[in-house]
Amino acid sequence: LAEERVTEIEDLVPGLHEADAADLLETLNRDERKLLVEILGSTFDPEILPNLDVSVREEVIEWLGPTGLARAVTELDSDDAVEVFEDLDEEFQHRILSQLPQAHRMILEEGLSYPEDSAGRLMQREFVVIPSAWTVGETIDYMRAAKDLPDDFYDLYIVNPKHHPIGFLPLSRVMRTKRHVRLTEFMETDLKTIPLTMDQEDVAYLFRQYGLVSAPVVDDAGRLLGVITVDDVVHIIDEEAGDDIMKMGGVSEPDLYSAVLDTTKARFTWLVVNLLTAILASLVISLFDATIEQIVALAVLMPIVASMGGNAGTQTLTVAVRSLAMKDLTEANATRFIGKELLIGTINGVLFAVLAGGVTWLWFESLSLGIVIAAAMVINMVVAGLSGTLIPLGLEKVGVDPAIASSVFLTTVTDVIGFFAFLGLAAAFLL
Amino acid sequence: LAEERVTEIEDLVPGLHEADAADLLETLNRDERKLLVEILGSTFDPEILPNLDVSVREEVIEWLGPTGLARAVTELDSDDAVEVFEDLDEEFQHRILSQLPQAHRMILEEGLSYPEDSAGRLMQREFVVIPSAWTVGETIDYMRAAKDLPDDFYDLYIVNPKHHPIGFLPLSRVMRTKRHVRLTEFMETDLKTIPLTMDQEDVAYLFRQYGLVSAPVVDDAGRLLGVITVDDVVHIIDEEAGDDIMKMGGVSEPDLYSAVLDTTKARFTWLVVNLLTAILASLVISLFDATIEQIVALAVLMPIVASMGGNAGTQTLTVAVRSLAMKDLTEANATRFIGKELLIGTINGVLFAVLAGGVTWLWFESLSLGIVIAAAMVINMVVAGLSGTLIPLGLEKVGVDPAIASSVFLTTVTDVIGFFAFLGLAAAFLL
Repeated sequence: LAEERVTEIEDLVPGLHEADAADLLETLNRDERKLLVEILGSTFDPEILPNLDVSVREEVIEWLGPTGLARAVTELDSDDAVEVFEDLDEEFQHRILSQLPQAHRMILEEGLSYPEDSAGRLMQREFVVIPSAWTVGETIDYMRAAKDLPDDFYDLYIVNPKHHPIGFLPLSRVMRTKRHVRLTEFMETDLKTIPLTMDQEDVAYLFRQYGLVSAPVVDDAGRLLGVITVDDVVHIIDEEAGDDIMKMGGVSEPDLYSAVLDTTKARFTWLVVNLLTAILASLVISLFDATIEQIVALAVLMPIVASMGGNAGTQTLTVAVRSLAMKDLTEANATRFIGKELLIGTINGVLFAVLAGGVTWLWFESLSLGIVIAAAMVINMVVAGLSGTLIPLGLEKVGVDPAIASSVFLTTVTDVIGFFAFLGLAAAFLL
Repeated sequence: LAEERVTEIEDLVPGLHEADAADLLETLNRDERKLLVEILGSTFDPEILPNLDVSVREEVIEWLGPTGLARAVTELDSDDAVEVFEDLDEEFQHRILSQLPQAHRMILEEGLSYPEDSAGRLMQREFVVIPSAWTVGETIDYMRAAKDLPDDFYDLYIVNPKHHPIGFLPLSRVMRTKRHVRLTEFMETDLKTIPLTMDQEDVAYLFRQYGLVSAPVVDDAGRLLGVITVDDVVHIIDEEAGDDIMKMGGVSEPDLYSAVLDTTKARFTWLVVNLLTAILASLVISLFDATIEQIVALAVLMPIVASMGGNAGTQTLTVAVRSLAMKDLTEANATRFIGKELLIGTINGVLFAVLAGGVTWLWFESLSLGIVIAAAMVINMVVAGLSGTLIPLGLEKVGVDPAIASSVFLTTVTDVIGFFAFLGLAAAFLL
């Protein structure tokens, strides 16, 4: 692809949509990528930057240098400029910032002064406000004359003299109304204003819940400072959903484009935790080593009990974590949810007790061994249903993200209880 | 909450946003819910229906009866009406459809004639098209006069005499342009048209990739039939992300509001598959029962090897499944991804071999047992890295959703290889 056919590339790439160009850059390997950025040089479209994965973006900005970045900051909307910048390494940020001209530095520094993942970081500082006294005609004339409006916008915000938003109007309604009508006569007053410090997850919730297309961001005094639009929210929803999937899979963040060593390090921590819990389960087994020595079938069968509990618990856990993230599971219906999962655990526990007990009876020709595994199965599946609900609810209550920590706790519980119930019952009744 | 304070409820509920009213209904138990729907009666806002979870929606529609539903179909936009209806039980659909007046039945039947999860189901049939000869002034005058336009819209579509879309214009640009200018002079021609049968996942990808606010849906002949807007796409993104999370957790669909028996049945299937794979792992163990009888420490330690492989594999699998869903992982970079994961598996394999081997050596005071577990650990972690990439890539290639089936295959592989490597090496070198 990226051989030396320079002119061909120069013709092709600027014709690509910025998102496709970003995908192309991500697909290339490091050397090809560097070559491409160098070939494009000053024709490199800054709109590509927000579409790049962070680790690739850092490389590209390094190659573009301070001049290239300064141009990018000028051309991008303020929210995109901050987005390009915020995920970069802090040291790298400082180095680039110090090389930028004052004006560009200030735009970025203001954006970065808001907390990470807050509405302040997401908002666009370019938006259209209309004083409350204006009519439709005045508004249209103003927009036709104004030069510094954002490219595209969907809603107009109407503000009072204190610059507080008092209503909004979708553009379609303004266009369909006669010129002499005042905006305040038909504006929507059911504004969902977003405080500067609101977390992006809560912002996404508001957009999703109320089907918003854009929403005003206000400071502590209620003054309109910026606007968040739905296209930014689409990215957040993707990001948050992706984060939850990654966390539940024991990966700290999407690492498709990260370097091997960074990825290995990030995953190592999680595996250490898993090693400790596996050793804990082994300690439980070692309590019964004398029993296993006498009935080796126990060693053969014990992973079944633990694994069924782990899987049943994971099912419950997944529903709980997702429902918590979507705010469908709240204190109001928590008790009902726990009761339901307990019932499901009991029903499935009895069904799989019969199945596993039957298989064991046939396989090892021992009815009593079948009864022991059946009893252990019921116990572990009920415990799984209970821990699958209580662990995420408990973590949420103490302010820990249930997506990241729930599954370690859960499998620890189902392994320990599974091994303990099965081997303990065997030791008590089979010897 | 829902006691007999009827007038209070009558005052309160209509003031709620439809999404909040839907949440309220979902939080109540069945009896309270029924009572509330009956109290609201004909003041029940049809906009609440698309916001309800399917199982709750079915109940509510049953209580509303055909008259209530007919009213809902009239008041809702066509895409919302189809959405309300499509997830209902088929038999229930037929019963309700047959009771509806002809006109309403046709709207629903047309929507339902498109494949499930297709663009045809998502599109709204109310939209604004402008002939290519019109000027800004003519367009604004038409919109001021027209009565049957959708409530809110963001883009205008310009069509040629064959009704093929040839361009679009965000409303903000139309408003900022002088009355005498023709729309074709400044319209955007870079249209992303969506075929009727496109899958909603691909629709979401287009919106996300190109930051679209709305997009035209065309039939095979290229005629404009409808429009999909970003607010519908937000729901799809949520739904698809939720589906992936659920499938990876072994739950077929979000079941927070489903009845206990339905949920139990849905989860049962997955657990049966898991039981079979657990029995397969047990069969592997039983090959070595003589070895375990002689060295009971093997039974104590074997879950560690299997569990570490399962977790390391799940990490890789999670990244692969999510990257496939986001179309970040393609054939172009698959080889590089596999190589990287293989390397990570090897590095982490060696690290955890040292850790687990060391712990074993100290615990059982046997260096040779430590060496055996270390070797098995390296083998299983490398296999985990390889299967974590190859299984989802292979499933994707043969057209099976990698989110739903990957993790069964993966844990089967890591359990079987983990037990086999550890017990096999022990049998060969320790006896």
